[in-house]
Amino acid sequence: MAFRTIWENEEGNVVVIDQRFLPHQHVETELVTYLDALAAIKDMVVRGAPLIGVTASYGVFLAARTFKILPDYKHRMLKAINELRNSRPTAVNLFWALNKMQAVVEASDEESLIENTRNAAREICENDVETCRMIGVHGLPIIEEIYARTQKTVNILTHCNAGMLGCVEWGTISSPIYQAVEKGIPVHVWVDETRPRNQGANLTAYEFEKHDVPYTVVVDNTGGHLMQHGMVDMAIVGADRVTSNGDVANKIGTYLKALAAADNDVPFFVALPSTTIDWEMDNGKNIPIEERDPNEVKYVFGKMDNGEFGKVLITPKNARAANFGFDVTPARLVTALITERGICKASTEGLKNLFHGE
Amino acid sequence: MAFRTIWENEEGNVVVIDQRFLPHQHVETELVTYLDALAAIKDMVVRGAPLIGVTASYGVFLAARTFKILPDYKHRMLKAINELRNSRPTAVNLFWALNKMQAVVEASDEESLIENTRNAAREICENDVETCRMIGVHGLPIIEEIYARTQKTVNILTHCNAGMLGCVEWGTISSPIYQAVEKGIPVHVWVDETRPRNQGANLTAYEFEKHDVPYTVVVDNTGGHLMQHGMVDMAIVGADRVTSNGDVANKIGTYLKALAAADNDVPFFVALPSTTIDWEMDNGKNIPIEERDPNEVKYVFGKMDNGEFGKVLITPKNARAANFGFDVTPARLVTALITERGICKASTEGLKNLFHGE
Repeated sequence: MAFRTIWENEEGNVVVIDQRFLPHQHVETELVTYLDALAAIKDMVVRGAPLIGVTASYGVFLAARTFKILPDYKHRMLKAINELRNSRPTAVNLFWALNKMQAVVEASDEESLIENTRNAAREICENDVETCRMIGVHGLPIIEEIYARTQKTVNILTHCNAGMLGCVEWGTISSPIYQAVEKGIPVHVWVDETRPRNQGANLTAYEFEKHDVPYTVVVDNTGGHLMQHGMVDMAIVGADRVTSNGDVANKIGTYLKALAAADNDVPFFVALPSTTIDWEMDNGKNIPIEERDPNEVKYVFGKMDNGEFGKVLITPKNARAANFGFDVTPARLVTALITERGICKASTEGLKNLFHGE
Repeated sequence: MAFRTIWENEEGNVVVIDQRFLPHQHVETELVTYLDALAAIKDMVVRGAPLIGVTASYGVFLAARTFKILPDYKHRMLKAINELRNSRPTAVNLFWALNKMQAVVEASDEESLIENTRNAAREICENDVETCRMIGVHGLPIIEEIYARTQKTVNILTHCNAGMLGCVEWGTISSPIYQAVEKGIPVHVWVDETRPRNQGANLTAYEFEKHDVPYTVVVDNTGGHLMQHGMVDMAIVGADRVTSNGDVANKIGTYLKALAAADNDVPFFVALPSTTIDWEMDNGKNIPIEERDPNEVKYVFGKMDNGEFGKVLITPKNARAANFGFDVTPARLVTALITERGICKASTEGLKNLFHGE
């Protein structure tokens, strides 16, 4: 791939792309302390479950560096891990990554905390790259099969951004797409804009443009119409959390697209690293749904005619607005889950068989 | 109601509210020639099927005034009617109103064209007021029944604007709501923002605020989540065209909400004047769907921080975007149609019984 979303620079700090400026401007931000990492996650400088997990892991390394000279070193580290854990409520990758980092902290002596946490964060980062690559390896045959059958451009609908910008490289939903393009299969992606934060219009469109994947942006209302008219061969979305029965928490609006897919016999896939699976939760009804700032609904952020960044108010000034971040798509609406291990039915049995009850 | 959306001023011209400035500014625009009326419809100064029909009717009156001194008076009138007919492709009210106006033009002698077309436009306008009032009379018992059963605030979800701003007074979906509020029934409306033109965030929110109806704006992605969590007692939307079997063409995204309603046993109503029914078309698959300017997707229009109106770009500058204006909700997903004549099933039989095969 052309670039990564997170890396270490020569000063030994961590650098991320500030995704709030995409697609208009490429801004890189240095994370020097763990508070920078915390803010980057909370303010959505970085987003996407896997990238949040990697950023939080590097945040633990940054905490190790910051707190080295202070008393209660380990205690401060564990407190920092807890703060990072509470930065976003829905992403289970975050908890998974931080549990790993916490184990490393607990097992390390104080002298090796910096080195051990850096190595652990690097490992989590490299694992993500390989995981995403493998999701593509397993997802590619689905696209190949459609193309073999239709001999026409394969039309794929996606919601939000579960591309490489939500990961370190490759992405989840985009990995099979990039690998299909590499193989010369003609694909075209319908990109849901994904209000309120427009991650589709901002990010998915940006990365497909950067990688020469043909795409068309549509408003979130459009997918049903496209499916009714045979303009979608498959839908594929990411996930913020998948419960052990195959229910999928993902960006608000995913459920509506899954309903439309079922109603029009369009296969609906969810691509995810297995770290997104919450084995402790047996159905999606218990997933806490983040409520975000209503101003994200009332104001739309973008590039103004004068070239500066700005926002426009689209409601009455004192309008009440509500901003639910995610919804839960019941397993019955999901054709299959695509993971780094392979493909399985979105069901307790499907997941158990693929992961042997891990 | 506090105000109307179209009226005649002392100069004998027609005045409309330029709805593109709502909710931020109340701008009134005078229509002096039929070209003003044509532009008002095409540029969405006015929108909403009934109001488009009334504006076009007044446009015929304005044409009668403009062409009075020119040769081929009637021929020019009929040409103007055809231009008005082609101003928007989906709204059947437009065709209905213009057929009425055309009959008046054809039956009039040249001397009485102005007076006759003015009277006919006035009649179409007053009919709309009464029609909308009656839709409320027939829809009110649905809200009363829910309240009688739950004794709690009745939560209603709507999409786009089929309120009074889309009509002359009362509105279609809003008429039962206003009449419920008048009766002291506590209601709360979930207002879909309705991308790409945000008629929900701009217009529905504005008119409910003006009339003290409690509402909350949500992004279009939200309705499914709300319904899954018992936060919606009923959904009600307008229609641009209803075919004789009960299929409903309405703002893009309506179909997705209807799917979610069916999946969660939330009753889904369509409120419409009977002029919206296209008796000639026996199912929704044949309804032509307007494709609009992709820039409506790429740019979001609103009020900037400096108080001026402006737009922000939310996609890569050269992004491809598609902008389908409407979708078709199959009759099977509609609980009932609410018309000025009464309520009926969304089916060939239901419509036939209510309208006695008219």
